Amino acid sequence: MQGIIAARRDGRTHTEEELRTLARTAADGSAPDYQLSAWLMAAYLNPLTPQETAWLTLAMADSGERLHLEGLPKPWVDKHSTGGVGDKTTIVLLPLLASCGLTMVKMSGRGLGITGGTIDKLGSVPGLRLDLAPEEMIAQARKIGIALTGQTPALAPADKALYSLRDATATVDSIPLIVSSILSKKIAAGAETVVLDVKCGSGAFMPDEREARRLALALAETAKLAGLRLRIAITDMNQPLGRCVGNSLEVAEAAEVLRNEVSAQGPTARFRELCVHLAAMTLAACGAASDTLEGRMRAERALVSGEALGKAQSWFEAQGADPGVLQTGLGLGAAPFCLTVPNEGAAGYVAGVDAATVGRVVLGLGGGRANKEDEIDPTVGVEVHVTVGAFVEAGEPLFSVHARTREEAEAAARDLRRGLTVSATEAFPGPGLILGEI
Amino acid sequence: MQGIIAARRDGRTHTEEELRTLARTAADGSAPDYQLSAWLMAAYLNPLTPQETAWLTLAMADSGERLHLEGLPKPWVDKHSTGGVGDKTTIVLLPLLASCGLTMVKMSGRGLGITGGTIDKLGSVPGLRLDLAPEEMIAQARKIGIALTGQTPALAPADKALYSLRDATATVDSIPLIVSSILSKKIAAGAETVVLDVKCGSGAFMPDEREARRLALALAETAKLAGLRLRIAITDMNQPLGRCVGNSLEVAEAAEVLRNEVSAQGPTARFRELCVHLAAMTLAACGAASDTLEGRMRAERALVSGEALGKAQSWFEAQGADPGVLQTGLGLGAAPFCLTVPNEGAAGYVAGVDAATVGRVVLGLGGGRANKEDEIDPTVGVEVHVTVGAFVEAGEPLFSVHARTREEAEAAARDLRRGLTVSATEAFPGPGLILGEI
Repeated sequence: MQGIIAARRDGRTHTEEELRTLARTAADGSAPDYQLSAWLMAAYLNPLTPQETAWLTLAMADSGERLHLEGLPKPWVDKHSTGGVGDKTTIVLLPLLASCGLTMVKMSGRGLGITGGTIDKLGSVPGLRLDLAPEEMIAQARKIGIALTGQTPALAPADKALYSLRDATATVDSIPLIVSSILSKKIAAGAETVVLDVKCGSGAFMPDEREARRLALALAETAKLAGLRLRIAITDMNQPLGRCVGNSLEVAEAAEVLRNEVSAQGPTARFRELCVHLAAMTLAACGAASDTLEGRMRAERALVSGEALGKAQSWFEAQGADPGVLQTGLGLGAAPFCLTVPNEGAAGYVAGVDAATVGRVVLGLGGGRANKEDEIDPTVGVEVHVTVGAFVEAGEPLFSVHARTREEAEAAARDLRRGLTVSATEAFPGPGLILGEI
Repeated sequence: MQGIIAARRDGRTHTEEELRTLARTAADGSAPDYQLSAWLMAAYLNPLTPQETAWLTLAMADSGERLHLEGLPKPWVDKHSTGGVGDKTTIVLLPLLASCGLTMVKMSGRGLGITGGTIDKLGSVPGLRLDLAPEEMIAQARKIGIALTGQTPALAPADKALYSLRDATATVDSIPLIVSSILSKKIAAGAETVVLDVKCGSGAFMPDEREARRLALALAETAKLAGLRLRIAITDMNQPLGRCVGNSLEVAEAAEVLRNEVSAQGPTARFRELCVHLAAMTLAACGAASDTLEGRMRAERALVSGEALGKAQSWFEAQGADPGVLQTGLGLGAAPFCLTVPNEGAAGYVAGVDAATVGRVVLGLGGGRANKEDEIDPTVGVEVHVTVGAFVEAGEPLFSVHARTREEAEAAARDLRRGLTVSATEAFPGPGLILGEI
């Protein structure tokens, strides 16, 4: 290990063998944490080349089991988001695409800070199992075309070892390390095509659009070298995605989209649009549709016909939950206190709803984790009733706060008001939802 | 800690407070190793400024107890060498300077690799205690002006925590980290004046003279900012220092110098010259002599008169050993097998005796540690009978190997021959013993 650390330290190019040794010793615990973290800092300051990143990605994917999807219907597809405020896309996209005939096998993570995690959101559904073993994943995907689990030590354990050190060692913001961490898990989970949503804005891991584009390019380059088909959308995260932020609230909003009960305007429509856009991209990318226009039509049909909802119900049922929760929302639980926050100023146009502010408020209400060990409350959260560019009357509701106490709700309301800007004149609508594609 | 690591990572200047936090949490164990090693790698790649190095030095010195020498006769002096092959200078210099009226209180280290450690050398003396508690150090220094101990966790524990990670994390060769490690221990041990021998050559930690000069300058600059009076000699380590390399052999050679039984030519004379030179520098630096010429005369007088030997005997006795060992060498132990290696070629001039080769041979014989946990054999070693520039007849002895078995001795002899160059014509004598002074 000293030699491998020294090579990175001096900016020498690693051999494939060195990166295999790194991944193997990280996975089996024979490299102590203090050596891994010295390597991580050296890799932060002397970034890996695209070829090194691809080798590390494959080495980490091979550091544990790999899911073998042979025998399951192709295409084998996975979906990933770099995380944002209110991003519950996976809960819609998996059944939507599975209902179009794709095999969707996915390992999801937990949230940290202001960005939630799919596992926490689905954790609010009573009975839903999120700890499937590799063989259960395969069996379920064979039956219904869809399986989702939390991170398991069986897949890409080298990534787990390295990832768990990065926050404490200030080595999170390294593009090659981010790329290899994301892609190694996708490869270990057996995907051949991956659709990736790189979020960009105040509520995202990458606030800066140039940085987000750099990350997207690095992901594309490494995926190509590693033999993975990857399509990327760079999407806006300056305002929250959809109406609901908070774990059980987001499941309920995803269910609204699956039931196709969404009005044409407003926050949930914006979230639905992202789901349809990503679905169209994916269908075109893996050849299930001839182009994105055909993909879009197939995705719309799946939502309108109820096929996506039906697939979601089979999915929830297969993993142990009552599928009725998608119809009624019953059993999701509700916070004891709900406070509506009206527009106390004059009528005007919404110039901004700061996603980071909303994220921090939900974190403060108990709906997220400031530290890895924190318990979360699945019922708390915020509904955002407006989108940027909308006209709001005086007194019209802006937010609903779901909290454990009146005091917490009122504190949240104060913070939320500071994150919202209303302008007397029609505001520049800002960049659209989709900022770019690769 | 994340903030401190991120500051170093981004090359921002640390505050004094940040470095105090680093030292405190390293010392009390509240910062985990993986965070310390991430910081170390960041500090390797974004080196500390002289002011930051001085702050870290003082913070590490304050991370445990500090020896308070108040009430002991001034000047309070310490001596340090960056380590080399055959460097037993401390064993002569401490009693020599104490016999001139200086208070010599010193914490010494163990050896690793081809460079030995004073503690290992003195460890070959039966009965000699090298684990004095702080209060024992003070009491003994008050009585006889001299006290030496192995590294104690009481002094500069932050340095111990950081130092123990550096080898495994490939962060050894960082000048600011080396400087703060050396000086923090000197300050914690109470010295006001320090004489420092920076070794340079194949058998030294710094083979390259420019690097050694850079280290010396950094030491001088940091010492000034930290309020420590420091004198530095940069000295040659391309050939071994003195005749003996190996633990008990080196104690015996130091005793020869203290008894003033050294012929005017040859390896031991070269070692004695370094002792006198460093003693003269020290006496002048702390004002005990008006200049180095007077210092040299006082040092010579202490050796010739037997005062230095008398002080060494008091010292050994105070720390539990039989002082007679300095007269007779009895009790030091001898290796079972001794092999003399003659000049098998034609007569000629010695063009080189490679210090690193001799160091590796002694390590191979069992006289050093390849790894921190290795046990050492105090009796094995090599005597080098020639110095660079000397004329050797055919058949004249070049080395004596002290080994556990004939096989090991013969293997050592083969290696030693490869490290020696004899030239038919008078060889360039090479750089002198003293390469520079600061």
